[in-house]
Amino acid sequence: MSTAPSSPNTRVRRLAERAHYDAATVHAILDEAYVAHVGAIVDGLPVVLPYACARVGDELVLHGSTRAGILSAIASGTPVCATVTHLDGLVLARSAFHSSMNYRSVVLQGAARVVDDQQEKIRLLDALVDHLLPGRRAELRASTQGELDATQVVAIRIDAVSAKVRSGGPKDAPEDVRPDLWGGVIPLVCGFGEPQPDASTAGSVAAPALRGARR
Amino acid sequence: MSTAPSSPNTRVRRLAERAHYDAATVHAILDEAYVAHVGAIVDGLPVVLPYACARVGDELVLHGSTRAGILSAIASGTPVCATVTHLDGLVLARSAFHSSMNYRSVVLQGAARVVDDQQEKIRLLDALVDHLLPGRRAELRASTQGELDATQVVAIRIDAVSAKVRSGGPKDAPEDVRPDLWGGVIPLVCGFGEPQPDASTAGSVAAPALRGARR
Repeated sequence: MSTAPSSPNTRVRRLAERAHYDAATVHAILDEAYVAHVGAIVDGLPVVLPYACARVGDELVLHGSTRAGILSAIASGTPVCATVTHLDGLVLARSAFHSSMNYRSVVLQGAARVVDDQQEKIRLLDALVDHLLPGRRAELRASTQGELDATQVVAIRIDAVSAKVRSGGPKDAPEDVRPDLWGGVIPLVCGFGEPQPDASTAGSVAAPALRGARR
Repeated sequence: MSTAPSSPNTRVRRLAERAHYDAATVHAILDEAYVAHVGAIVDGLPVVLPYACARVGDELVLHGSTRAGILSAIASGTPVCATVTHLDGLVLARSAFHSSMNYRSVVLQGAARVVDDQQEKIRLLDALVDHLLPGRRAELRASTQGELDATQVVAIRIDAVSAKVRSGGPKDAPEDVRPDLWGGVIPLVCGFGEPQPDASTAGSVAAPALRGARR
């Protein structure tokens, strides 16, 4: 991945000053995401569905049931678009026009690669579990062949990609600013709530440590 | 919108017990969303971009610059898919296979209608601002003709739509449950942070009241 737009399709056309193409920015945004919104063309129509995701190296990995909506329609080479968005705040300007939101997003276009190799499939599924909760995979039994067969794993190379970031306060026209009208940012914050053990969990078992607590 | 799948395209194919088609469920999920991930076919490829959204009656309203990526490619009748997802929790099961997430999502397919009528355009843009912060629109000046001309508003009828909801704890196979292994849900909670006034806001001006504070 270069620091320049790698594809005409993923060039940020609007507000190019908000565009970022460097790997560190793209990876940081992807790594914070549990879900990507994945678009594909199904029967001639666009379909967008949310999928659990994890970045593994220079690929974004998705998984789903082999019977699922669009993953089952994805064969190697099918063009897809996977988009991740973190909403960071509501930007309250002094005009409707300049009202905005702070966000960080990544748009990734590419061909989905179906992962058939069993060892690679296991490795990528393990990464998805550990992305949910780092270290969790080691606590669980191995997947059965039936489970592996029922699961489809696809990977999209992080190549034709762009990131877009807006941060900071409103950008009002000077003539719109009135000291008596509040302007600024209302942050949107997301984090972990109190873990809720199910009835099968013994009371003596400690809840998972939530490392790297979310914003 | 009926309580049955209204289109073969939006029928939930996988885990149909998680599917909901009633208007109340669909509207509640849409009304909690600031952003929809909107997919369209551009130059033969799927493109998914995040857009601010607001439900107005039985339509989902989006807006953007007339120079923007996919809205500029949307003419009346263009098929689009707008998807909203709220992630509610990480579901930690005793196997990788049953690990999951709690979520509420809506998938809406339809034809984007470009809103050209000036009065309707103003009304829908007002709704978008008030969706960001209820009551905010009344505090702002009217939009100029130039601002209106630079903004494209589209509406998608909430018709071919489905919602999907997962809630509750892990659904482990009985033989996987071990009392010494924690299983349950780690809630993901999102809410408003402390409002951050910009430098132009007088210290005496109260921050906006955040009615209907988010989860």
